[in-house]
Amino acid sequence: MTLAEGTNPVQLLQDLIRQPSVTPELHGAFDVLEAALMPLGFNCERVRFEGDGSYPVDNLFATRGSGGKHLLFAGHTDVVPPGDTAAWRYQPFAAEIVDGTIYGRGAADMKSGIAAFVAALSQVPEAGHISLAITNDEEADAVNGTDKLMAWAEAQGHRFDFAIVGEPSATARVGDSIKVGRRGSLNGQIRVTGTQGHVAYPDKANNPLPVAALLIGALTGKLDDGTEHFPPSNLEFTSADVGNETTNVIPASVLLRFNVRYNDRWTPESLIAAIEEVIGNQDLRECSAEFTVVGRPSRSFLSPLGGGVETLVETIARRTGIPPELSTGGGTSDARFIAEYCPVVEFGLPGPTMHKVDENVRVSDVEELTALYAQFIADYLAGE
Amino acid sequence: MTLAEGTNPVQLLQDLIRQPSVTPELHGAFDVLEAALMPLGFNCERVRFEGDGSYPVDNLFATRGSGGKHLLFAGHTDVVPPGDTAAWRYQPFAAEIVDGTIYGRGAADMKSGIAAFVAALSQVPEAGHISLAITNDEEADAVNGTDKLMAWAEAQGHRFDFAIVGEPSATARVGDSIKVGRRGSLNGQIRVTGTQGHVAYPDKANNPLPVAALLIGALTGKLDDGTEHFPPSNLEFTSADVGNETTNVIPASVLLRFNVRYNDRWTPESLIAAIEEVIGNQDLRECSAEFTVVGRPSRSFLSPLGGGVETLVETIARRTGIPPELSTGGGTSDARFIAEYCPVVEFGLPGPTMHKVDENVRVSDVEELTALYAQFIADYLAGE
Repeated sequence: MTLAEGTNPVQLLQDLIRQPSVTPELHGAFDVLEAALMPLGFNCERVRFEGDGSYPVDNLFATRGSGGKHLLFAGHTDVVPPGDTAAWRYQPFAAEIVDGTIYGRGAADMKSGIAAFVAALSQVPEAGHISLAITNDEEADAVNGTDKLMAWAEAQGHRFDFAIVGEPSATARVGDSIKVGRRGSLNGQIRVTGTQGHVAYPDKANNPLPVAALLIGALTGKLDDGTEHFPPSNLEFTSADVGNETTNVIPASVLLRFNVRYNDRWTPESLIAAIEEVIGNQDLRECSAEFTVVGRPSRSFLSPLGGGVETLVETIARRTGIPPELSTGGGTSDARFIAEYCPVVEFGLPGPTMHKVDENVRVSDVEELTALYAQFIADYLAGE
Repeated sequence: MTLAEGTNPVQLLQDLIRQPSVTPELHGAFDVLEAALMPLGFNCERVRFEGDGSYPVDNLFATRGSGGKHLLFAGHTDVVPPGDTAAWRYQPFAAEIVDGTIYGRGAADMKSGIAAFVAALSQVPEAGHISLAITNDEEADAVNGTDKLMAWAEAQGHRFDFAIVGEPSATARVGDSIKVGRRGSLNGQIRVTGTQGHVAYPDKANNPLPVAALLIGALTGKLDDGTEHFPPSNLEFTSADVGNETTNVIPASVLLRFNVRYNDRWTPESLIAAIEEVIGNQDLRECSAEFTVVGRPSRSFLSPLGGGVETLVETIARRTGIPPELSTGGGTSDARFIAEYCPVVEFGLPGPTMHKVDENVRVSDVEELTALYAQFIADYLAGE
């Protein structure tokens, strides 16, 4: 295709890559974005969040228009560290283009998504109710980023009808897959405590290890049979540790750690209740079993498949000839925070090199994603 | 009682305590013994063993007489370290006597047993076939001590009919308990190995923890219902360790450690076969479970309750009015090595302070043990 007049997505991507915005260092990443967005009629506001046990983070909220359907684009300008720069074929913040490929940290994850969306905006009429929520902390704590930015936006009176997160979502070619949901993830631990004693006198001790074994057996594995768009929820123990090197001592306690990946049948609350019930139903033989949630669970979500999702599927199918797969696989992203406010999909480039040395994307893929975003914006806003 | 003419056991005990023979340092401990034994007609030979992964150790074999029943006394001159000597009320190698109590490292464990037996020998006619096997490494590795000394003595043509080990065996008063057997002890570990993977994709991994839990459940607990003189054999897991701090990774393997205390129904060989059979009968779900024995198992033994044991019971009952309890409880000792050559009992003082700060014994108890040893020697040798 030939790009319409307006912002060049590749040039914008290069400008973004050249800001070494390793979490939470911003450098000039928002300056670059604001310079591109303000001429397109966007009002830009920087919002800094801090506290809650994490570092301060800069966030950018840009909005234009009002009334009608409100489309949100979300993403992050922060990148993971480049690691050993000597291992890179092209310097990680130089944004070199070689043989139709652009190299640099963040090229795939996810400065390309942001560049393509901003460039797409320059190709559609300067109308429509559109906002961008950009954080600089998705790759690390994610405490003072999208989660708080969405709450802030709601407090400012913004209501969204549909959101696209520009994370890499494609498997082989642009448009072959969009992510319409995510499993939730919960980390837990169980401290099983008995009574220490000498192995020669087991009657005077109470070994917690057989009770721990019982709990591993009772809790491990599938929690359900899956749902229409999700595989079965599953619990895996990831560690069991006593640390007793003394051969003649029955230990006092053992710490079990586990993770649950769970589908849309469960909330963190219902899951915690179910785990507590299973533990409560075991014969603990006078040991105690103290279950605690570690960190903050991420919720599962599945966006409604009509509305924006339906439009996006039609836009992609019309242009590429094949409707995208509706995926709920893969790891976690900031989409989990947005899902609490409106239907959300992840739709971006293939990401095989993300987080790796020599991270790169093809220039033609960036242009194709720009075209798809532009067509979708037009289709979605026309559907009012 | 009044001691007969001869060696004074308390003086001999003081001389021994004043040699700070912390394993494997001998100092003058054997010099003291040889000076006491040679006037009683004993031929003394020092035998030094080394190698097999342990330090060199001095051992003393003393023998007199030939033909008829051959009585062996076994013990050790080495002691555990005193620890912080500032914590001792009386210096640990000074052998001070205060209010009828003698203080010092080794007073209970077990220089008093040796001193009492040598003093007892001075009270009986210089006749009879009697040997002493004294090591200076019972408290630590026990690799180059009694085990090798017994093999050496057999190679020299010595055959024994009955052995007394002078370890503390009494519970409250001298003669209230003798140990006629010991449980065996076996340390083992099982390395359960599956396939590492991401918790989000459990089908691509194989978690070893549920299999480890299965093995803990299958192997834990009693192995039998006990025997006439022993409690049930019992297996306790002492540790389970993965060491995986990463919440999203299914671990590759887990190491289980366990100990078995087993009665005279089992040998190490039959026990190992039984453990292997239990493991083999489990559904390991394509994990591997590699069982290995850690260190050298100690065999269980039960001395025949006739012969020397019967004579000893009668000697004690006649003098104290109460036959001793025939115990098989408590920890391990060098008696396990001697049991492979002849019936053996442990018969010594009460040992509540052994290995502790201010280790001590009562002077009257040392004298009473001397009298009991002397009477037993006379009774046993008279029974030919």
